Amino acid sequence: MISVIMGSASDKAIGEKVVKILKEFDIPYEVKVISAHRALKVLQDYVATTDNKIFIAMAGKAAHLAGVIAGMTVKPVIGIPVKSSTMDGLDSLLSTVQMPKGIPVATVAIDGGENAALVAISMLAIEDPALREKLEAYREKLEADVVQADKDLDL
Amino acid sequence: MISVIMGSASDKAIGEKVVKILKEFDIPYEVKVISAHRALKVLQDYVATTDNKIFIAMAGKAAHLAGVIAGMTVKPVIGIPVKSSTMDGLDSLLSTVQMPKGIPVATVAIDGGENAALVAISMLAIEDPALREKLEAYREKLEADVVQADKDLDL
Amino acid sequence: MISVIMGSASDKAIGEKVVKILKEFDIPYEVKVISAHRALKVLQDYVATTDNKIFIAMAGKAAHLAGVIAGMTVKPVIGIPVKSSTMDGLDSLLSTVQMPKGIPVATVAIDGGENAALVAISMLAIEDPALREKLEAYREKLEADVVQADKDLDL
Amino acid sequence: MISVIMGSASDKAIGEKVVKILKEFDIPYEVKVISAHRALKVLQDYVATTDNKIFIAMAGKAAHLAGVIAGMTVKPVIGIPVKSSTMDGLDSLLSTVQMPKGIPVATVAIDGGENAALVAISMLAIEDPALREKLEAYREKLEADVVQADKDLDL
Amino acid sequence: MISVIMGSASDKAIGEKVVKILKEFDIPYEVKVISAHRALKVLQDYVATTDNKIFIAMAGKAAHLAGVIAGMTVKPVIGIPVKSSTMDGLDSLLSTVQMPKGIPVATVAIDGGENAALVAISMLAIEDPALREKLEAYREKLEADVVQADKDLDL
Amino acid sequence: MISVIMGSASDKAIGEKVVKILKEFDIPYEVKVISAHRALKVLQDYVATTDNKIFIAMAGKAAHLAGVIAGMTVKPVIGIPVKSSTMDGLDSLLSTVQMPKGIPVATVAIDGGENAALVAISMLAIEDPALREKLEAYREKLEADVVQADKDLDL
Amino acid sequence: MISVIMGSASDKAIGEKVVKILKEFDIPYEVKVISAHRALKVLQDYVATTDNKIFIAMAGKAAHLAGVIAGMTVKPVIGIPVKSSTMDGLDSLLSTVQMPKGIPVATVAIDGGENAALVAISMLAIEDPALREKLEAYREKLEADVVQADKDLDL
Amino acid sequence: MISVIMGSASDKAIGEKVVKILKEFDIPYEVKVISAHRALKVLQDYVATTDNKIFIAMAGKAAHLAGVIAGMTVKPVIGIPVKSSTMDGLDSLLSTVQMPKGIPVATVAIDGGENAALVAISMLAIEDPALREKLEAYREKLEADVVQADKDLDL
Repeated sequence: MISVIMGSASDKAIGEKVVKILKEFDIPYEVKVISAHRALKVLQDYVATTDNKIFIAMAGKAAHLAGVIAGMTVKPVIGIPVKSSTMDGLDSLLSTVQMPKGIPVATVAIDGGENAALVAISMLAIEDPALREKLEAYREKLEADVVQADKDLDL
Repeated sequence: MISVIMGSASDKAIGEKVVKILKEFDIPYEVKVISAHRALKVLQDYVATTDNKIFIAMAGKAAHLAGVIAGMTVKPVIGIPVKSSTMDGLDSLLSTVQMPKGIPVATVAIDGGENAALVAISMLAIEDPALREKLEAYREKLEADVVQADKDLDL
Repeated sequence: MISVIMGSASDKAIGEKVVKILKEFDIPYEVKVISAHRALKVLQDYVATTDNKIFIAMAGKAAHLAGVIAGMTVKPVIGIPVKSSTMDGLDSLLSTVQMPKGIPVATVAIDGGENAALVAISMLAIEDPALREKLEAYREKLEADVVQADKDLDL
Repeated sequence: MISVIMGSASDKAIGEKVVKILKEFDIPYEVKVISAHRALKVLQDYVATTDNKIFIAMAGKAAHLAGVIAGMTVKPVIGIPVKSSTMDGLDSLLSTVQMPKGIPVATVAIDGGENAALVAISMLAIEDPALREKLEAYREKLEADVVQADKDLDL
Repeated sequence: MISVIMGSASDKAIGEKVVKILKEFDIPYEVKVISAHRALKVLQDYVATTDNKIFIAMAGKAAHLAGVIAGMTVKPVIGIPVKSSTMDGLDSLLSTVQMPKGIPVATVAIDGGENAALVAISMLAIEDPALREKLEAYREKLEADVVQADKDLDL
Repeated sequence: MISVIMGSASDKAIGEKVVKILKEFDIPYEVKVISAHRALKVLQDYVATTDNKIFIAMAGKAAHLAGVIAGMTVKPVIGIPVKSSTMDGLDSLLSTVQMPKGIPVATVAIDGGENAALVAISMLAIEDPALREKLEAYREKLEADVVQADKDLDL
Repeated sequence: MISVIMGSASDKAIGEKVVKILKEFDIPYEVKVISAHRALKVLQDYVATTDNKIFIAMAGKAAHLAGVIAGMTVKPVIGIPVKSSTMDGLDSLLSTVQMPKGIPVATVAIDGGENAALVAISMLAIEDPALREKLEAYREKLEADVVQADKDLDL
Repeated sequence: MISVIMGSASDKAIGEKVVKILKEFDIPYEVKVISAHRALKVLQDYVATTDNKIFIAMAGKAAHLAGVIAGMTVKPVIGIPVKSSTMDGLDSLLSTVQMPKGIPVATVAIDGGENAALVAISMLAIEDPALREKLEAYREKLEADVVQADKDLDL
């Protein structure tokens, strides 16, 4: 099971991108709203007690959520910088990706919910050949979509 | 007493700037090295148990230290973004200052150790006329230095 | 009493965020429109004569207001960089936070009116246990809101 | 086994950071210099034929290496943006992290070799309790180092 | 014949700018949708087998398309950075222009479809006096339009 | 006479660039060190009482000096953003140039002391044909230097 | 008379800001659309033959107009960086302000049409006491407007 | 013959990178120092009278050289943004690449002298099979160097 944690309910649109991919791959998940700043102890309890194997965390502005989780666990933590009303997501990106030595956050693109899910799935697929096949089928679909878009193009 | 917390021993040069001003104003202080990422529980214990009135926190890169402390206490938290080996301090600045609604960090300039101390002192001076006088004397000294620099100028 | 100073009447939306929090905490305040550039002497008179203990100043673009006030007083000055029509608030942020040694501005996030008020309140709470309790209750409410948002989440 | 791929021999200093951590955790690895731009077919052959489970790729400037590998495989790809002689690493960071939907790169900090290795190890530890214990011991060491640095501090 | 390659069907608006100019100059062209990340082999086959003389490639975010094509061919490759939903095109620009030594991409402005076509035409005009004359006529038209705009101005 | 005002004695190297050009053109000048933040009243007195016709002001970081002078006088104010130890001069540039409507600062390049002097001289030359001739001779010298550099080039 | 030159008819909104102020001060002006890139010779003829005393030039993107004019004349050239559809005006600002030694452009804020006019007027006022009085009256009006806005404020 | 134009003799190190590649491919060239700002008429004469087929232009700061040449000719113009003492080359890059519709500059990486030469050669190779073969051999050498660097690696 994968934990999908939003720093605020306002991140829901990005959370939905994550969930859509996880559902598509039949990966069980749990979505939570827990702020590192407003509910640190709730976050600590959750991270300390969950059996979930991977954390996906998303936040905006001074986006500390993924980094704080990474300080609480040695399990993989995937960070999604969320674009806020100012700074075009640069603040979230730098706050998420520029982690100090020893405490890594695997960061994806600004608002990149789908790719965060895919990183998590690729981790699970290391020891799961059936899941890797699903990933390969997903990629073949992406490629076929490009080929179809090329055919459909009228320019 | 003021808590001066560095995220890493490598922030020492900036910590010294803070301490130099606090000494000059005879403000008692305690300097600590506690990382939000590598020693979160140590930080929690420290923040929960100290009687100190104000926190000054400095960190570089994805600088979460001040923000995480701000999530642990309602006491004033002053953040100093520390310039690291890349990004010229912009990552530290945005990670420190762009805090979400409800959990403020009072941020000073990149590497601005002296000003962090002065912000703390100005807080204490609200109810301490003698301290305010010292601050005013300090300012008069700054002004006098400028006037002297103007006199000494040979250009 | 806290002085809330806007550099222009166009900053009113951010000023309202400050006032909303101050009202919530029953902190007396005075809101002013005074430009550092267009009405420097008015600003000087105001800063020199007011008995208010803390200044909150907000401005956009080359946002000098907070820094100029900081040069006029040793009382705490809290700066809010206001996002303008270009540069996404980066100009306001750097103009407000990058103050030289000796003249500090305690800066909050771009458009972060609520947090500016909370920094001011945290200063007053240093010597006011009842106010600190209010701040703690405010934080508990923030945490409860997160917990509720988590319960309400249907994703 | 983990593939550690440098886009150029000039990235060696960052590659050494990766290798140091992998050695410390007794994780077998293979280090390669293969440029996505100058040796695409070599890269394709390598990625298509290796049994290695995870790719760590590092490159500077318009850093396409990690993203191109991610387009060739569904295995996890971890990207390290390398700081070059201009742009302070921002070009490498954006070229590595801002991947389009469907083709993820798990990105770490600019020049963050150690953390890239730790992300890879955390993936392997999902199904390897002994490795997770090593990671936890590593973290305890990090925390102990912070505590020791705090004790050693003379400020 | 010129190859005009879009990384995604969503780049169509920029592709149309390219095509409009090529049509105006009666330059034969072929428009394709081929992603470097999602359809690398399709791209390789296309680049390896086409007789087209020049490539114009456009992509957004971590915009690797032009650079990857440049690694597959020694023919001229012209890159158009496409503005995406975040980062205002800076990510696309740096990913396209900051190519390493040896593998050049001739880059035009963000969303600069017309200029990409004009760069291609200027290349063909090196050995084609009639085409150069058309380019000169186009420039005279641009100048005449400016002169007319000046006359029409009512300010 | 032209007033050349440095915000700090540390701006001396840039001040020397200004003075060198003013001397070359035999323009009388007065160099001052006056900080807008540390010596506002000194600055006010100086600006209010001087008969000088033009102000050249230079400062670094949150560079308010030129803007504050512009708020004190309707005489021309030329601003030089000075590069400081962080942010590569971007903070100084934005703080100097992004002035609000009504209070202009004529800004030159970061560390552009010579050009600030030349802007001032060009103002004086509006009503001084002899000075304009000197400016034209200076330009001819610049052009001749380029032509000579072209001749001397051995590449 | 002042020359107001737009690089493109699309800069008209900013040109109108310039004209509004010039009219308010009864300064004669001439508005032109002349592109440095598309109509260089027209620009040369115009600059070489006009008796106008000051140039105000505005352009977007790679905004060369002001700088190119500055290379053609020793008269004062005031540059207005115009915000374009990408890069939020940063490209225009840097292209306008970062002029090399010897060829100055007096630059105002992004889209700062009014201030460009005011810089020009302040130049003319150096030798025109009546005009300076008008400028002082304008400033008094600005100050009075601020005082009135302060009175009208209901917050 | 290719024209290689430097805006200043201080760009010589980048000019040498261009020349080194042109020599390696036996492409005749002419190197000039001509500033668009300080010697516009010299530049005009040169561009108007030369029979050279391609222009490579390099400049720093507000780098107008390539764009101004592009306004003078319909021949291909390749621009090299040169890193200056501030802004890390971002000013040069944006001033060179962000050209308006109609007047293209084919831009390479900051300080990317070699790639500018290679873009020019690739243009000439469109109608010159022998030159294309040389380019292919150059690429094979690049690939072989990568393969050798991989073999030599001791990590």
